[in-house]
Amino acid sequence: MSHVPSETTVGVVGGGQLGRMLGEAAAPLGVELVVSDPTPDAPAAPVVRDQIVGDFDDEATVRALAERADYLTFEIELADPDALERVSEATGTPVHPHPETLRLIQDKLVQKRRLRDAGVPVPAFRAVDSVADLRAALEELGYPAMLKAREGGYDGRGNVPVESPDGVGTAFEAIDGPAMVEEFVDYDRELAVMGAVGDGERDTFPVTETIHEAEILRTTCSPARTTEAVRERAREVALDVLDVLSGRGVFGVELFETNGDVLLNEIAPRPHNSGHWTIEGCHTSQFEQHLRGVLGLPLGATDRRGPTASANILGDVETRRQAHLAGVEDALTRDRLALHWYGKHEVYDLRKMGHVTLVGEAEPTALLETVRNAVADLRF
Amino acid sequence: MSHVPSETTVGVVGGGQLGRMLGEAAAPLGVELVVSDPTPDAPAAPVVRDQIVGDFDDEATVRALAERADYLTFEIELADPDALERVSEATGTPVHPHPETLRLIQDKLVQKRRLRDAGVPVPAFRAVDSVADLRAALEELGYPAMLKAREGGYDGRGNVPVESPDGVGTAFEAIDGPAMVEEFVDYDRELAVMGAVGDGERDTFPVTETIHEAEILRTTCSPARTTEAVRERAREVALDVLDVLSGRGVFGVELFETNGDVLLNEIAPRPHNSGHWTIEGCHTSQFEQHLRGVLGLPLGATDRRGPTASANILGDVETRRQAHLAGVEDALTRDRLALHWYGKHEVYDLRKMGHVTLVGEAEPTALLETVRNAVADLRF
Repeated sequence: MSHVPSETTVGVVGGGQLGRMLGEAAAPLGVELVVSDPTPDAPAAPVVRDQIVGDFDDEATVRALAERADYLTFEIELADPDALERVSEATGTPVHPHPETLRLIQDKLVQKRRLRDAGVPVPAFRAVDSVADLRAALEELGYPAMLKAREGGYDGRGNVPVESPDGVGTAFEAIDGPAMVEEFVDYDRELAVMGAVGDGERDTFPVTETIHEAEILRTTCSPARTTEAVRERAREVALDVLDVLSGRGVFGVELFETNGDVLLNEIAPRPHNSGHWTIEGCHTSQFEQHLRGVLGLPLGATDRRGPTASANILGDVETRRQAHLAGVEDALTRDRLALHWYGKHEVYDLRKMGHVTLVGEAEPTALLETVRNAVADLRF
Repeated sequence: MSHVPSETTVGVVGGGQLGRMLGEAAAPLGVELVVSDPTPDAPAAPVVRDQIVGDFDDEATVRALAERADYLTFEIELADPDALERVSEATGTPVHPHPETLRLIQDKLVQKRRLRDAGVPVPAFRAVDSVADLRAALEELGYPAMLKAREGGYDGRGNVPVESPDGVGTAFEAIDGPAMVEEFVDYDRELAVMGAVGDGERDTFPVTETIHEAEILRTTCSPARTTEAVRERAREVALDVLDVLSGRGVFGVELFETNGDVLLNEIAPRPHNSGHWTIEGCHTSQFEQHLRGVLGLPLGATDRRGPTASANILGDVETRRQAHLAGVEDALTRDRLALHWYGKHEVYDLRKMGHVTLVGEAEPTALLETVRNAVADLRF
């Protein structure tokens, strides 16, 4: 099917900031978006053709999306792969990435097994269905380790560190369900690579260094401040990961760098926070690339325009309340600084409300300092 | 007034492609747009908060816009400066640029007089209210010359060349109203400079070479293929032009290059086709810059990311009909090529339907060849 501008609609499950930035990328291509999201006037709503209000995993909502769309995709892992598959078959609307990929990624244990079997380097892990399982696994893996719920976690939710044998019972209770435990990786650095799969082609964006605090992404820079050999290895691993996934679109591949090698951390079957910098930093953004992939258009150039850093604007309030961001004038006095606001009506502590990006000629460390200072000028 | 994301709405008179690209630039800044346009589902409609259907010069429509907006602006010269001024005063909603600027620019004779008086180099011109005026003026200015309607012309409409004394009567009849006649400028090249006025600051984007055919812009490249001295002179003249205008926003300054100097051709009090390349080609686009200007935010960096060319996608059909663009896959096989579709439902001959842009490391001439070839792959 060829892409005729204004005649191609993509239905997106999820209308958060990723849906919003997909919407910003869609208009120039002549692609119209309809999104579904349970929150009325979701972040994407003002910039897309329409929003259908409904839960991410509600099949009738997915069906309504499909009936208005030429392609289906999703920007959140809470989408239901079974519903997507049934609706796609019933309506003939292709869905990308393939729901099988979503199913694979939703279950962290299944994901890790499949990746390990495909030769992707992953931390040592064990399945955990009981306190006894966990205790036995930790005798092999040692302490500390990370207990992870098999399903439903994101931004560090659903992850519980186990520091010593005394903490085993409490950790298992906190997860309270099917889990896996992973060896603690004493990493030197966290890296991420956005991969892209098109119609018979695949590519990666430049390797990104990701800096988390309390498991929430704070800043990124590209190039990552590591060796060229590690960057090349990260790219290889990302391409190996793409081989395991099916369907088109972009995929976020999160990695640990440890002792000059890399280990896979997690995969996101969609645009990812670690790739937001590509909007200004690369010749094609991850959002345009996702749409090009879903539509089967030629993938765009992924080369970097220049060294780039980004910083998230996170909620810094004690109680949930209406979002009211002050300090924009101050932040924007910085040359070349770009603001991205997500349009969320309410702010709560550590909620991702927007981000800033800076493309420069300076070293990543200097760029990081500038974006951090810019965000420090902003307050709710 | 400070800019609070999601709480700032800009009302835009006009919802064509300029309104659409303003909408694309507005979302990241957390600025919401409401546009007014007589055509339902105008190009901007799918990417902005709302469209009010109404004529550009209808005061009730402007009033409805103002009542929903914190700032008013316009993306078309057909806006009515008197209505804008009255509504702005009645509602307290600031309008940028100032309606006085619109008034000045709408009348080509008044515009040229004011610019000449301010020391801006303009071609020799005379007011023309009758055939006798025209004949007398041409005895001084010589043949050929360009007769221009004082009001209402764009894309070469309202401009009639007068080749010889035999053509005087026919030319005057074609205009049939208040006019001016301008000496024929045997230019070497056409240039354009986008100027930007913020709150107490002003700047220019890099000088652009504009290539017209039958008075319609076809392609642009930046840097312009001329000397550094001419580029510097063009920038100086553009800054002198900004001094004559009032209110904030971006302004298109079209120039003739002749014998190593420049002469002013025309001014647009809004983003302009000659600046579309800035979306990819500069660190801040003319559209974001216009919004920053209108809101009084710090102006963004106008430096060029790299040599850039753009080409318009023009209607190539004999009769007006539904727009259906084929060949997008072929055009997009070119590395780094960006597509911009305007979302117009109908196409007619030479209608501006979209554009493509390429930022590269190559010389402008090579980039121009690539964008021309890309557009040649597209057909309605």
